[in-house]
Amino acid sequence: MKSFPWGRVAFFVTGNTCKFDEARMVLAEYNVATAMLRVKAVEIQDDSVEEVAKVSAIDAAKKCGLPIIVEDAGLFIEGLKGFPGSYSSYVYRTIGTKGILELMENVEEREAYFHSVVAFSSPDEPPRCFHGKAEGKISREEKGSHGFGFDPIFKPLNGHDKTFAEMTKEGKNKYSHRALALGEFAEWYTSGFQK
Amino acid sequence: MKSFPWGRVAFFVTGNTCKFDEARMVLAEYNVATAMLRVKAVEIQDDSVEEVAKVSAIDAAKKCGLPIIVEDAGLFIEGLKGFPGSYSSYVYRTIGTKGILELMENVEEREAYFHSVVAFSSPDEPPRCFHGKAEGKISREEKGSHGFGFDPIFKPLNGHDKTFAEMTKEGKNKYSHRALALGEFAEWYTSGFQK
Repeated sequence: MKSFPWGRVAFFVTGNTCKFDEARMVLAEYNVATAMLRVKAVEIQDDSVEEVAKVSAIDAAKKCGLPIIVEDAGLFIEGLKGFPGSYSSYVYRTIGTKGILELMENVEEREAYFHSVVAFSSPDEPPRCFHGKAEGKISREEKGSHGFGFDPIFKPLNGHDKTFAEMTKEGKNKYSHRALALGEFAEWYTSGFQK
Repeated sequence: MKSFPWGRVAFFVTGNTCKFDEARMVLAEYNVATAMLRVKAVEIQDDSVEEVAKVSAIDAAKKCGLPIIVEDAGLFIEGLKGFPGSYSSYVYRTIGTKGILELMENVEEREAYFHSVVAFSSPDEPPRCFHGKAEGKISREEKGSHGFGFDPIFKPLNGHDKTFAEMTKEGKNKYSHRALALGEFAEWYTSGFQK
């Protein structure tokens, strides 16, 4: 597979500066510079985060004429049949963390995971997906002010009982689904696309 | 605008037999026969039901090579910032009516509305949308076994304090957002597309 003239720059299509900052830090460890591109890419309704990311990536690559990545993630709560899943950002904007805690009030099974998919797509190649998963639990109350979205109510396994929002970016990146998926992508991206 | 050789048949793209039955009854009053087409059409994530329906209609018409209608609806609850809105079917499948009642436990403002959009599209023309809205309230408990989705917790205005699920199909069609939107569509569809 030919290597791209852009070398080690990753064009990250997102409008979320927190996501961008997390990505920048992870990719920098692989000597990949991250450029933020704001492009309105289509986002489909699908219970699978991979499907949502893949379709967005194809659309964004076509619109930009560049090889790009998009990232899509969801919080899957076992006791709520996977809700809010791939609809997490909408659910966050409406009922928010407070709503999730209300729905979980009488739910003992607090296991949950974040699933992140980084989809890479270029105008003339099929997309490629990289996955990351962070297992953990939904806390009983909101804690912390870092991060974004459902970070204040998610405690990753082995995270010393802290929520993502109680961690610095560096701290969160040790456990986070997004950092894992970006790491997978970066390994492939810097390996000359040979894998 | 030319009239279609299919005359007074409406091809309704849906996988939901309850929706289909409701549509069949409404359209029959306008002497329009309804045919159910099962086609997997794209469904985007967008807070507007109109956008979701429109994009699905364009995609379905292209896939079938026929003039078709799709219908998309959402339940918008004022006290929950419009949640579950255009994501109603996913929310129903996960947290369900029980989840909504939990979220509304301490919410006094129980006003809500169903918004339905019927989108008509043909392979060679831009889509056209027809709207219907049913205002009402979220009940304190589930009632009734007719209909589908959030019908057991929605009481339309002037519906004699009954939920949609306590009404027969005929009864529901007197108040329902879907019947209104389908009626709008049928008037246009049977008027020789002149409007």
